[in-house]
Amino acid sequence: MSTATSRIYRVTGMTCGHCVSAVEREIGAIDGVTDVTVDLATGDVVVDSTHPIADDEITAAVDEAGYLLGS
Amino acid sequence: MSTATSRIYRVTGMTCGHCVSAVEREIGAIDGVTDVTVDLATGDVVVDSTHPIADDEITAAVDEAGYLLGS
Repeated sequence: MSTATSRIYRVTGMTCGHCVSAVEREIGAIDGVTDVTVDLATGDVVVDSTHPIADDEITAAVDEAGYLLGS
Repeated sequence: MSTATSRIYRVTGMTCGHCVSAVEREIGAIDGVTDVTVDLATGDVVVDSTHPIADDEITAAVDEAGYLLGS
């Protein structure tokens, strides 16, 4: 049985490709995350994972990268 | 006799701290450069060096970082 999960988050404050890389790197380091795709223009961050990731973990990773998880 | 030099350039396109770091790293790698200070808000880049640096070298470093040397 698979619990593969895909969720979309909104991150504010990213302004350039370096910002995108930082967010992708931090979220990508979370255990279970298999892919992170950021749309710089919208701030949409699609996170694919082998199981549902706790919101706290996403929030912490985005904060670590230097940005804010918004809505 | 010292030929210590300090010049101000203007770089356009930097939007965040990562951009600043990239410009500082590339210009800082030029032979003779001793300090690079970037003002993100204005795009002003102050370059201190042991001798005058050719404009071509600054232009190439800024380009390598992914930005444009403006005026």
